[in-house]
Amino acid sequence: MAEDRVLRVRTLLDAVRAAGRTALTAPEGKVIADAYGIAVPGEELATDVDEAVAFAARFNGPVVMKIVSPDILHKTDAGGVIVGVQGAVDVRAAFREIIENARAYAPEARIEGVQVQELLPQGQEVIVGAVTDPTFGKVIAFGLGGVLVEVLKDVTFRLAPVDADEAVSMLDSIRAAEILRGVRGAQPVDRWAIAEQIRRVSQLVTDFPEIAEVDLNPVIATPEGAVAADIRVILSEGEMKQRRTYTCAEMLTSMRRLMQPRSVAVIGASNEQGKIGNSVMRNLIDGGFSGEIHPVNPKSDDILGRKAYKSVTDVPGEVDVAVFAIPAKFVAAALEEVGRKGIPNAVLIPSGFAETGEHELQDEIVAVGERYGVRLLGPNIYGYYSTWQDLCATFCTPYDVKGGVALTSQSGGIGMAILGFARATKTGVSAIVGLGNKSDLDEDDLLTWFGEDPNTQCIAMHLEDLKDGRAFVEAARVTVPKKPVVVLKAGRTAAGAKAAGSHTGALAGDDAVYDDILRQAGVIRAPGLNEMLEYARALPVLPTPKGDNVVIITGAGGSGVLLSDAVTDNGLKLMEIPSDLDAAFRTFIPPFGAAGNPVDITGGEPPSTYEATIRLGLEDPRIHSLILGYWHTIVTPPMVFAELTARVVAEFRERGIEKPVVASLAGDVEVEEACAYLFERGVVAYPYTTEKPVAVLGAKYRWARAAGRL
Amino acid sequence: MAEDRVLRVRTLLDAVRAAGRTALTAPEGKVIADAYGIAVPGEELATDVDEAVAFAARFNGPVVMKIVSPDILHKTDAGGVIVGVQGAVDVRAAFREIIENARAYAPEARIEGVQVQELLPQGQEVIVGAVTDPTFGKVIAFGLGGVLVEVLKDVTFRLAPVDADEAVSMLDSIRAAEILRGVRGAQPVDRWAIAEQIRRVSQLVTDFPEIAEVDLNPVIATPEGAVAADIRVILSEGEMKQRRTYTCAEMLTSMRRLMQPRSVAVIGASNEQGKIGNSVMRNLIDGGFSGEIHPVNPKSDDILGRKAYKSVTDVPGEVDVAVFAIPAKFVAAALEEVGRKGIPNAVLIPSGFAETGEHELQDEIVAVGERYGVRLLGPNIYGYYSTWQDLCATFCTPYDVKGGVALTSQSGGIGMAILGFARATKTGVSAIVGLGNKSDLDEDDLLTWFGEDPNTQCIAMHLEDLKDGRAFVEAARVTVPKKPVVVLKAGRTAAGAKAAGSHTGALAGDDAVYDDILRQAGVIRAPGLNEMLEYARALPVLPTPKGDNVVIITGAGGSGVLLSDAVTDNGLKLMEIPSDLDAAFRTFIPPFGAAGNPVDITGGEPPSTYEATIRLGLEDPRIHSLILGYWHTIVTPPMVFAELTARVVAEFRERGIEKPVVASLAGDVEVEEACAYLFERGVVAYPYTTEKPVAVLGAKYRWARAAGRL
Repeated sequence: MAEDRVLRVRTLLDAVRAAGRTALTAPEGKVIADAYGIAVPGEELATDVDEAVAFAARFNGPVVMKIVSPDILHKTDAGGVIVGVQGAVDVRAAFREIIENARAYAPEARIEGVQVQELLPQGQEVIVGAVTDPTFGKVIAFGLGGVLVEVLKDVTFRLAPVDADEAVSMLDSIRAAEILRGVRGAQPVDRWAIAEQIRRVSQLVTDFPEIAEVDLNPVIATPEGAVAADIRVILSEGEMKQRRTYTCAEMLTSMRRLMQPRSVAVIGASNEQGKIGNSVMRNLIDGGFSGEIHPVNPKSDDILGRKAYKSVTDVPGEVDVAVFAIPAKFVAAALEEVGRKGIPNAVLIPSGFAETGEHELQDEIVAVGERYGVRLLGPNIYGYYSTWQDLCATFCTPYDVKGGVALTSQSGGIGMAILGFARATKTGVSAIVGLGNKSDLDEDDLLTWFGEDPNTQCIAMHLEDLKDGRAFVEAARVTVPKKPVVVLKAGRTAAGAKAAGSHTGALAGDDAVYDDILRQAGVIRAPGLNEMLEYARALPVLPTPKGDNVVIITGAGGSGVLLSDAVTDNGLKLMEIPSDLDAAFRTFIPPFGAAGNPVDITGGEPPSTYEATIRLGLEDPRIHSLILGYWHTIVTPPMVFAELTARVVAEFRERGIEKPVVASLAGDVEVEEACAYLFERGVVAYPYTTEKPVAVLGAKYRWARAAGRL
Repeated sequence: MAEDRVLRVRTLLDAVRAAGRTALTAPEGKVIADAYGIAVPGEELATDVDEAVAFAARFNGPVVMKIVSPDILHKTDAGGVIVGVQGAVDVRAAFREIIENARAYAPEARIEGVQVQELLPQGQEVIVGAVTDPTFGKVIAFGLGGVLVEVLKDVTFRLAPVDADEAVSMLDSIRAAEILRGVRGAQPVDRWAIAEQIRRVSQLVTDFPEIAEVDLNPVIATPEGAVAADIRVILSEGEMKQRRTYTCAEMLTSMRRLMQPRSVAVIGASNEQGKIGNSVMRNLIDGGFSGEIHPVNPKSDDILGRKAYKSVTDVPGEVDVAVFAIPAKFVAAALEEVGRKGIPNAVLIPSGFAETGEHELQDEIVAVGERYGVRLLGPNIYGYYSTWQDLCATFCTPYDVKGGVALTSQSGGIGMAILGFARATKTGVSAIVGLGNKSDLDEDDLLTWFGEDPNTQCIAMHLEDLKDGRAFVEAARVTVPKKPVVVLKAGRTAAGAKAAGSHTGALAGDDAVYDDILRQAGVIRAPGLNEMLEYARALPVLPTPKGDNVVIITGAGGSGVLLSDAVTDNGLKLMEIPSDLDAAFRTFIPPFGAAGNPVDITGGEPPSTYEATIRLGLEDPRIHSLILGYWHTIVTPPMVFAELTARVVAEFRERGIEKPVVASLAGDVEVEEACAYLFERGVVAYPYTTEKPVAVLGAKYRWARAAGRL
C-alpha cells in the first residue's frame, strides 16, 4: 500500500515536473491527498441522476452540486450550483434543475455531468502545513485558522516526520490550545483526526523531498473529524544542498584526539611577544599541558626553550592536533603537510576566510581537509581549552578551574565573555571551544563528544546558525537524556538575524522554528548571554530534582513574594503544603510567621530557625526542591546563614538525600561572600536578585523533564 | 443635557436600589444606554402596521420583528419572530403574519403590539466593559470579542474616565490590534465609534460610583459604526472605603521636614550594643548628620555622649522627626507625646503591628497620628536614609554615596538588598526609604516629594500593593514628566499575589490591570528586583535621548548580533544608516568589516578605530544613542577602551552634545574594572552581558516617551 501510494505520487510529480510546473492543480492535490489518506471533501462526477443520488448517499450528509462543462465557466451565473442538498428527492430535483438551467443558459454547451461534493460542516478552522526550512529541512506547522490567528501568529512547528503522539502534542503547543478542547461548553474537536492530518502531511513531505510546501488551509475540525477544505502543494525549484556527514564513531575518534591529545604541534609558533603563535605556545606551556608541545617555524630552531621544526612533517611521532597560528594565505599549504603527516585535527585560529568574504580560500582548506581526512576547527577562532588535560590551545589567557561545563561559542567576542565570566565566578569548566566559521567541525560533533565525555556534566553553546539543524537535533536527542544542553541562539529577532547575516553570512532561520524545534530536542534555551553563562555555571552544581514540589523558605516576606513570582515565571509550581507538614513548619516559626508556601520564618529569627526549617525541607520526601530567601540581620549574619546552610545540605547529601537548593540573599555587601561560599558547596546562591536563583532552578527542571527524569 | 441624563439614571438606579436589586434588567440597561448615548440596537413598539413601517424605515436597514404579549413567553414557538425584514411591503406582511400567528397560537392572548428592532449587521465583535478594582476604582476594559480572545486574554485596561484619544489608544493596546485596522483586504472598522462606546461607558461609571460593573458584550463593530448588542449593568453591594487624603502642599510640608530635618529625636535610644535604639543612634552619628540628635530614654541621662531626655516633650526646640526604636506596645503612648510636642513626622521602626495580625494596635497609632497631625512612616521598617543630609535614620549600616536615585521598599528584606547592591555598585543615592505597613505615608507622598526634590533624578519603588491606586497614578503623572519613576510590583503572578496576601494582608490587584495602568501613568515597570536596581543605578547616569535612532558600534560581531536581539526585545529601533553616514563609518573600518547597523569594526582593531567610530556616532546629529560592543584584545585592552570612550564622551558633553552611551564588554576579568570606570563617567557599561546595557537604555527610552521628551 505504502509503496503503491509512493508510486502514484511519484508518477504525478514527475508529470508535473515534466510540464515545467512547480504548483500543483486542485485535482492533482486531490490525487496526493487521496494517496496519503489526507481527508478532503469527497467529490464525484455524476453523469446521470441515479449516480448523483448514489454519490450523495455515500457522503452521508448535505452536498454541493455543480455543473461540469468545459463551456460553462461561470457556474453560478448559469444556475449551475446548488449548495446544501440532502436526501434522494432533493438530489434528484437539484440534478434536474442544474441540467435544465445549464441548457437554458448555454444550449450548445457540452455537459459532462454534475459534480457532487461533500459539504463541509461548520467547525473550528485549523491550518496544517509543511515547509522546507533552510536549517531544519522539512518542518511541519500547525495553528488555528482564521484571520485573528494570522495576526497573533499562534503557530507551532516540528521536524517532519512526526508520529501520532508528536502530532497530537502540537495541538497543545499553541497558545489557544484550549479552544480545541472545547470552551464555554462547546464540544471538543476530534483531536486525533487533526493529528492524523498532521502526521500524513509530514509523511508526504518526508517521502518526497522535492515537495517544498504543503498547505491544508483551512482544515475544518469538528467533534466528528477533520477535513481539509483545500490542499495546496508546491514543488521546490532546485535541489537541497547535501552536507558531508560523519558517523558517530568517526566523530568520537577525532574528537577524542582533539580533546585528549598527547601531542600538539603549533604551526607558526613564535618567540616574538604579541604574536598569536607566541601566545599559543605560552598558554600551552603555562597552562601545564603534560603532553608533547612541538613548535613549527621554518625560521627558528628553538621556541620558548623547545626544539622547533621547519615543517610539521618533521615532528617525530604521532601528533593529535595541529594548532595554526599563521596568516590565512599560508594555511592551505600547511594543512597539506598536516594531512600528509596524518594529523587528525587542525585548529585554525587565523581569520581572513569566509567571514571577510574569502569564500574560495575557505573552500580550498575544506577540500584539503576532506582529502586527507583532517577535521577542521574554525577558522577564525580563539582556539580551545580542555581543562582536565590542562590544555590551553588559544591566544587568550590560560584557564584552570576544572569542572563540569563545556562551553562553545561561534563568536570570539562571546568566547572572551565566557572566559571572563568563568574566571570571575570560578565556574568549573571541562572545555571552552571556539567554533568560528564552522568550516567543518560544528555543534553536532561537539555535542556528540561532550555527551560521551565523563568530565562534562553540562554543555552550553552560543550559536548564530546551525549548518545542519537535523544533525544537531539528532545529537541533542542522544545527549539530553544524559546531561543538560543549554543553547544561546543569537539572531532571535529580525534585527538580530539581520546582524547575523552581515556578520557570518549565515542564514539565521526563523526564530519560531528554532524555538519549537530546539525545545522538541530537549534543549534549554537561554534568553540571553548572561543567562547562558549563569546556567552553565549552576546546572552542573545542582542535583537533579526528583519531583515537582518546590518550597520557598524565607526570612524576608518581601523576597518570598518576588520568589513566588519567579517560580511562576519559570514554569515551576509551589507545592501545596499538606496540613501535617504545615504544622511541622509552624513549630519552628513565630506565631505571626506564615506557614503555607512560601514558609515565611520572618526577619528577626536566629540561625536555628533557618536550620530547622531547611532540615525539615530536606528531610520530608514530599518536598523536591528548596528556594531560600535570606534576609541579612544582626541575629543571623550572612556567613552564619551560609555556613549553616552548606553544612546541612552536605550532611543530607552524605545521607544520600540530594535535592536542588537555591538561594536569594538580600543584604549588605557581605552577602556576596556568603553567596560564593554557598555556590562552592553546591547551593546556587545569588545576591540582590530573586530572579536568578529561580531561573537556574527552572532551567534544571526543564532539563529534568526533557531528559525524562521527572 | 448632561444633568438631565444624570437625573434620569439617578432616578432609575434609586428605583433599582429601592427594589433591593443589584442587577439591572435589559430595558433598564437600555434606558441607561440611551441616556449616555451608548449605541444599542434601536427598538420600538409598533401598535399598528403603519407604525411598524415607519419604525423600520427609520432604522434604515433590516429589522427583527417580535410579538409583544404578556401572555406569549415562547415567541418563536408562536411564530412571533421574523428576522431580517426590510422594505415597507415586507414589513407590512411580516406584521400581519406575526399577529395572525399569535392569534392562532393563543387566541386569548393580550397583544400589545410588535417590537421592531434594528438587526445588527455582521461585523467584528469587541467587548467594552467597566469594573471596580479594589486598588484603582473604576477601570475600563476593552478587548476583541469571541471565544478565542477569551482564551488568549487579549484585553487592555485604563482608569475611568478616559477621553476620546485615550479611548482610541486602547484599540491599539491589544495584541490583535491589527484586526481592527482591516487585514487581508478587509475594511477597517469605525475606530472612533468604538472609542466613543468606551468613553461613554467610562463616563457612566465615573458619574455613578455605585455602578460596579458594565458589560457591552459584544459590541458589533463595522466600517460604519459600533453598536452594543447587549448592555449589562451591575450595582455594587456596599460602599467603597474612602481613604483620608492630603493636599500636595500638606504632603510636601511634612515630607520636607522628614527628608531635610534639622532636629531628630530617637525614642528608645540606647547605649546597649545590639539594641535597635543603639544602632539608630550610631548610624545617625557615624553617618555624619549635622543637625541635632536627641536621644530619648527614661532610664539614661547620657547616650553615646549626648544628653538624653526622659520624654520627647522635654527636648528643647523644634523637632522635625521622631524615630521610634521601642517595642510595639509602647508606641501609641510615645506617639501621643510626639503629637503634643508638635513633631510632624514619626518614623516607626518597630514591628508587631498589622503584619503580625495586630490590626488594632496599628489602628490605634493611626488614630493618634491623625489626631495630632503626625505623619507616620511605617511601622515595621528599617528606617530611612537621606544621603544629601548625611542622615541614616536606620538600624542598618550607614550609606554615603550621594547621587540621583531615591529608592523605596515596602519590605525590609528588599531594603537590605537595595543597600547591599548600592554599596557594591557605588550607586549614587538621594534617599532609601522603608515603607513597611504603610499605615499612613505611602508611595504617593514619597513620589510627590521626590518629584520636587532637586537632588533626586530618578525614583525606584518596590511595592506589593497600593493603598490608593488613583492617588499613586496622579502623583506619577505629575512626576514622570520631570524624572523617571521605576516600579517593581511584587505579587505579579497568582503565586506571588498569594504570597503577598499572606505576607501583608494586602490585596494584590490583578496584574493585567496594574500593568496597563502603571504604563498609562508613564511608570517604567521593572520585571524583577535586579532590573529595578540596575535601572535605579543607571537611569540617573544616562542623558535623555533626543530621538529614536540607535546605533550599535561593535568590535565583536557576535556581540553585535546579541545586542541587536536586545534592541528589539527592548522596543528600540536600529537606525537605518543613510548612505553618506555608512560611507563615513566605512572609512574607519577594515574592508571586510560590516557597516550598516551594527557597525562591525571587527575584532583586531586598535583603539583609534573605536575612537573614530564613537566620535562619528556622537558627532552626527542623526544618531541619538550609542550601544558599544567591546571585545577584549591585546591591541585594545579593556582599560584603554574605557579611557578613550570616557574621554570622548566627556569631550562631547563639554561641547553640549549629550547622548546616551551604553556598553557591553566581552573579555577577561579586567573588563569589570573597565565597566566600573565607565559607569563612574556616565557610560553605562556591563561585563559578560549583552542584555543589561540595552535593557537600561530601553528603560530610559520608555521614560523619555512617557515624559513627552521624544
